[in-house]
Amino acid sequence: MIANIVSVHVKEENINDFKIASTANHLGTRKEAGNVRFDVLQSKEDPTRFTLYEVFMTQEDVDFHKTTEHYKTWRDTVAPYMAEPRSAVTREIICCDVPEKSAD
Amino acid sequence: MIANIVSVHVKEENINDFKIASTANHLGTRKEAGNVRFDVLQSKEDPTRFTLYEVFMTQEDVDFHKTTEHYKTWRDTVAPYMAEPRSAVTREIICCDVPEKSAD
Repeated sequence: MIANIVSVHVKEENINDFKIASTANHLGTRKEAGNVRFDVLQSKEDPTRFTLYEVFMTQEDVDFHKTTEHYKTWRDTVAPYMAEPRSAVTREIICCDVPEKSAD
Repeated sequence: MIANIVSVHVKEENINDFKIASTANHLGTRKEAGNVRFDVLQSKEDPTRFTLYEVFMTQEDVDFHKTTEHYKTWRDTVAPYMAEPRSAVTREIICCDVPEKSAD
């Protein structure tokens, strides 16, 4: 399994817009067969700072995610919200319990 | 819900020791009623770099975690493995599906 931890810094006026777009991406991504987690996080101290925590079963599942409409819509929607380019680190999973998928 | 993302840099000779200690902490923490996630991640490019991704329901659950034997055992066991002090960022959860707990 592969985790991507994405750090996002948005413009103050786009905080709510970013939450709305990322919630839609969360809901779409969680329906992908190879997705394990898609958590959207926000800093309390600095609400313009967000983190996306994404886990996929394989690299193929990561690649597939990038082809989905919900990902592409999110990418294009949030592009003008960025205060600076986002950055990501990739990690391999050592321990992660994989839940049964709910039918949301 | 509250997420803590902990960055850990271990000495090369302690990579496997750290994995063993952190797996035990993962198993213990996942049994805590207020714990939602406890993922242990490792960098492929630099295997001395680990990330712990921890989610708890409330601040009280975070505080309780620090009182558990599995946490205190982990903290004391890994202390000599550190190549540098670990760092953490705290985030509030915007989107995170909470799975039913399995009986592991």
